[in-house]
Amino acid sequence: MIRTAVVGATGYAGAELVRILAGHPEVELAHLTSRQYAGKPLDSIYPAFKGVVDRDLEAYNAGKLAGRVDAAFIALPHKVPMGIVPGLLEQGVKVIDLSADFRFKDAQLYESAYEPHTAQSYLAEAVYGLSEVFPGEIAAARLIGNPGCYPTSILLPLVPLLRAGLISPATIIADSKSGVSGAGRSPSLATHACEVNESFKAYKVMAHRHKPEMAAILTEAAGVAPGFTFTPHLVPMNRGMLSTIYANLSSGDIPADDIAHCLAQAYGPKPFVRLCAGGQLPDTRHVRGTNFCDIGLRLDPANNRLILISAIDNLVKGAAGQAAQNMNLMFGLEETAGLLAAPYPV
Amino acid sequence: MIRTAVVGATGYAGAELVRILAGHPEVELAHLTSRQYAGKPLDSIYPAFKGVVDRDLEAYNAGKLAGRVDAAFIALPHKVPMGIVPGLLEQGVKVIDLSADFRFKDAQLYESAYEPHTAQSYLAEAVYGLSEVFPGEIAAARLIGNPGCYPTSILLPLVPLLRAGLISPATIIADSKSGVSGAGRSPSLATHACEVNESFKAYKVMAHRHKPEMAAILTEAAGVAPGFTFTPHLVPMNRGMLSTIYANLSSGDIPADDIAHCLAQAYGPKPFVRLCAGGQLPDTRHVRGTNFCDIGLRLDPANNRLILISAIDNLVKGAAGQAAQNMNLMFGLEETAGLLAAPYPV
Amino acid sequence: MIRTAVVGATGYAGAELVRILAGHPEVELAHLTSRQYAGKPLDSIYPAFKGVVDRDLEAYNAGKLAGRVDAAFIALPHKVPMGIVPGLLEQGVKVIDLSADFRFKDAQLYESAYEPHTAQSYLAEAVYGLSEVFPGEIAAARLIGNPGCYPTSILLPLVPLLRAGLISPATIIADSKSGVSGAGRSPSLATHACEVNESFKAYKVMAHRHKPEMAAILTEAAGVAPGFTFTPHLVPMNRGMLSTIYANLSSGDIPADDIAHCLAQAYGPKPFVRLCAGGQLPDTRHVRGTNFCDIGLRLDPANNRLILISAIDNLVKGAAGQAAQNMNLMFGLEETAGLLAAPYPV
Amino acid sequence: MIRTAVVGATGYAGAELVRILAGHPEVELAHLTSRQYAGKPLDSIYPAFKGVVDRDLEAYNAGKLAGRVDAAFIALPHKVPMGIVPGLLEQGVKVIDLSADFRFKDAQLYESAYEPHTAQSYLAEAVYGLSEVFPGEIAAARLIGNPGCYPTSILLPLVPLLRAGLISPATIIADSKSGVSGAGRSPSLATHACEVNESFKAYKVMAHRHKPEMAAILTEAAGVAPGFTFTPHLVPMNRGMLSTIYANLSSGDIPADDIAHCLAQAYGPKPFVRLCAGGQLPDTRHVRGTNFCDIGLRLDPANNRLILISAIDNLVKGAAGQAAQNMNLMFGLEETAGLLAAPYPV
Repeated sequence: MIRTAVVGATGYAGAELVRILAGHPEVELAHLTSRQYAGKPLDSIYPAFKGVVDRDLEAYNAGKLAGRVDAAFIALPHKVPMGIVPGLLEQGVKVIDLSADFRFKDAQLYESAYEPHTAQSYLAEAVYGLSEVFPGEIAAARLIGNPGCYPTSILLPLVPLLRAGLISPATIIADSKSGVSGAGRSPSLATHACEVNESFKAYKVMAHRHKPEMAAILTEAAGVAPGFTFTPHLVPMNRGMLSTIYANLSSGDIPADDIAHCLAQAYGPKPFVRLCAGGQLPDTRHVRGTNFCDIGLRLDPANNRLILISAIDNLVKGAAGQAAQNMNLMFGLEETAGLLAAPYPV
Repeated sequence: MIRTAVVGATGYAGAELVRILAGHPEVELAHLTSRQYAGKPLDSIYPAFKGVVDRDLEAYNAGKLAGRVDAAFIALPHKVPMGIVPGLLEQGVKVIDLSADFRFKDAQLYESAYEPHTAQSYLAEAVYGLSEVFPGEIAAARLIGNPGCYPTSILLPLVPLLRAGLISPATIIADSKSGVSGAGRSPSLATHACEVNESFKAYKVMAHRHKPEMAAILTEAAGVAPGFTFTPHLVPMNRGMLSTIYANLSSGDIPADDIAHCLAQAYGPKPFVRLCAGGQLPDTRHVRGTNFCDIGLRLDPANNRLILISAIDNLVKGAAGQAAQNMNLMFGLEETAGLLAAPYPV
Repeated sequence: MIRTAVVGATGYAGAELVRILAGHPEVELAHLTSRQYAGKPLDSIYPAFKGVVDRDLEAYNAGKLAGRVDAAFIALPHKVPMGIVPGLLEQGVKVIDLSADFRFKDAQLYESAYEPHTAQSYLAEAVYGLSEVFPGEIAAARLIGNPGCYPTSILLPLVPLLRAGLISPATIIADSKSGVSGAGRSPSLATHACEVNESFKAYKVMAHRHKPEMAAILTEAAGVAPGFTFTPHLVPMNRGMLSTIYANLSSGDIPADDIAHCLAQAYGPKPFVRLCAGGQLPDTRHVRGTNFCDIGLRLDPANNRLILISAIDNLVKGAAGQAAQNMNLMFGLEETAGLLAAPYPV
Repeated sequence: MIRTAVVGATGYAGAELVRILAGHPEVELAHLTSRQYAGKPLDSIYPAFKGVVDRDLEAYNAGKLAGRVDAAFIALPHKVPMGIVPGLLEQGVKVIDLSADFRFKDAQLYESAYEPHTAQSYLAEAVYGLSEVFPGEIAAARLIGNPGCYPTSILLPLVPLLRAGLISPATIIADSKSGVSGAGRSPSLATHACEVNESFKAYKVMAHRHKPEMAAILTEAAGVAPGFTFTPHLVPMNRGMLSTIYANLSSGDIPADDIAHCLAQAYGPKPFVRLCAGGQLPDTRHVRGTNFCDIGLRLDPANNRLILISAIDNLVKGAAGQAAQNMNLMFGLEETAGLLAAPYPV
């Protein structure tokens, strides 16, 4: 059994980690921390877990984890993880950090979007945890910067096509839509039920922090910096993210089948990417509660333009699920272990 | 492994059965039927199941089940089951019927609310599958009439108190609220998203078919016919049912603790009833996707009146989950087998 | 033109007042105040109003209102109004206060549920603004304590029946359900969209502050203190309130028609109470955005029990609309002036 | 008073027409038709209208309208209007058709997306009712083809920029999102509340019938056929439509201010287009129930790409509201008459 800690277990991503790890056959939930609720039982905060996950929340204490934990999932706001991750690594704990703190090789890029980085010496070894794209590096890593939800939904469909040179890097537009849980559990006017209901809007247009993270990986895949526009939107639902991505084919005579073939080659053997067949297209309802990324495509032949559509559950493949998938890879387990529970059909 | 069939696998209760049985460690999903979608893969109707439950839907054919199946769950509209259940029993298949067809000992009572019963000879042996109330009978049965969702949410809090004589049977009012999935998957104006949104209403007041089913069990528990009023309401949400139940205490000097004590005695050892402690009260969100029935209570001392509040997931404890729980009891499995997956926290 | 002020114009009730008064043919919106947003245009807080209601928000300043305003609507949290209402009255401004501060004749009753009352000398003249029940008193008043939303939905169906002695005051149970806007615009975990979605629950059971307010009016109507139990619930929708009310008929030989007749006599001439005919029952969707209270009823003859169902929009008949209706009465206008705009059909 | 008929008054667009026309100071609602509900009062289908719009529904009968009606709004499925509009025009009734039947000058274009056109001789005189773009033609017309909701939300921001040559017609992508009421009132699995909830998806990608309608107007505005990709999506809400539109600037040295200036010139004097200032962006909540189209913009300077965001209420500016606006233009009324009721703030 792998002994795990969830640091920040009461935010939405943390609670989702608890859900997933509680159902993982080779994992022990050894330690759950919460600053705000330390000392309380988890089910006093999430009564749904009563009788299913009976654990108490503890204050974070690095010393307590030494020797008691093999892997730590950090589900805290960015900036906090950089202060505690080095200590965990020193104790031999493998770390999967769900914040942005260890997603960037380039400290300056991080600092351009976030703030001064105080653990830069760990950036070189940190691996970007996009499981299907960097499985080998992840398996060998002791520190994972788990991807953001928007990047996961956008990079998975794009990376194979860019690597294969099938689409023009200069023409990429990602129009993304997210459920409300992506905004976290802290109350605000923006997440007030009465403000969310009957509302659909774009937000942080040209100003969202996930953009540099995506640009870095797209550049790596394309070999050049992409011309990449990203627009996030908020959907009145709890969970789910759908990205509609537009790009021109790199030349006028690429058959539609080549696109589908390229994705099939990249993802055919991958258990968590489902390519939509024929008439079907992704729907966030179909990935809710699962670690799948569903990808569909259509061609606009008159404009030589490709439309890629991807759907994930922002809390699972976009956060906690991919984190668990990375743990599986890091510890040599079956990649799908603990991640194939049948989802709620409705 | 218990080989199971889900007859009517594409309705909401049927699909929920598939979800639960797919995660059950001692069950094989041997046979899924659908009249409407026979011949198609299940995941063409429920794409969420792709890569998780890969099965094809078959037309119902009694002959095909003989020798291939140990237990059959029937998730069909009432009237249809009475035509097929006898044949299944003859073949030695144990049957858990989710319709109303085998919930009544008294054919006349059934016929007063539904229609002529054509398999009356099986009513005597059929056991009402309220798992916590009739566990012994269920364990010995080969035919279960699985309770309706409203009855489950209302009977669980009431039966122990009536049996103990703590509340007055003449004064029972159940004000119940259900999510939309209780209305089934067939489209209608009543389930149109635009009609459900921003709508809350009572329906079938004094005319709901679940009432005689409840009256029969309440009479059994109280020893007299109860004075029982039942009002169902529709809530703009997919899943969940909450019943707020009012009854006078049977005498003026019953301490509040006696009520709580009685419920604790009845349900303390029962894994799927959670009694709310202290300040907490049930919320349908806390039971979503689970087989729990959460029960809370408050006393109105000025009026010597008890307020019981119960919450279930109408598709789980109110249908598919309780059916699986009954299967566990019938086959001597752990009562909780396959039913303690951690629920979605949000 | 009646010159009006809305004090506290950016809460949900305040903004609804602005909507209604902006469409009132005999009202001038002279003054909108906000502590938090003073100095800003209203449409910077409610962009929906841009091009429709172009007004700036001002800090509250009693001096500024003198001579400029005929009527002031106070939409502030309780306790604040008692500090400013006396000053307004002294200046000759008629006041409709939407808080609880002036709803009670009896200061002790107020203080038992709220806190020390510092303007008790005004309680005697304040009129409880349940428009259909106290129209004469309202017309003659200079200070209205506008009813709470729960009381409005519960008292309207009950008062005529209690006055007529048709139901037993000792047996009243009100099971009420409210949309989220009743909780106000301030963000909290309880109103977080992800916590509200797929949630239905009771709250403040036996502890809601609206109960003494109702008890006072029920006592007045019945001539005795009622045996009254009240349970509020939260519905995942923005607007709307439905109360399902149970009471025994006062004797066993009251025909159902007498109940309907009594309500028809009380409300036939009243433009804002709609009695459901025949098969229909109230639905919050049918009153959304309107000042109507829809009332339906069913009899449970076996138990001699009446089921009354009422629906209002908590922000309109439950707050801003009834306030405007009271203004109409106070200023001798047509009772329906400004209040019969056709509602959104979907 | 203009005497109006709503033909097809019980669909969502028809009922919205009733709402708007009932509040129009210079309109008489002379005639409401319904095939399905003829003979019934409107408020038996829409109880919300009881006491506000008391009219009976009649079967459609061309003869009955002669001399009784000045303007007819046709809110029927496409194909039906082409059979009845000629007869109405012959009787001197001005017609505003909300279907696609009279939106195309070119019968072949219509037939490519819909079906054989049997009233082609009326296409030449029919005017495309995009009120802000063709006000003069609308004022002079007796037959209006009222625009689709998607076209309204997409054309309004694009037309002035294309006319001014500021954006490249070859690079236009419209990513649009619609509430469920756009799918109409007929029940289907796609509009079942349980299927819509927690679902976001694209649909009819590269196959939506609104595309040729948009392409025709874009071609006219740009002077060349545009390279135009359109992707519609379904949002779990009743009302509202948001389009996020991407286009390259036509040259690299166009200042951002020129774009804003061009839109301000086009729409500054137009009462129903609101240009978002500074930090604000459109939100469907801000246009709900109104006839406004809100437009915001951002520039992606690194890619010389413009992001236009527009929001409308699909039932108002996208259907019934624009139809009423067109009637105002056709009859020489104030353009805003009946269309500036303050919207529900929440």
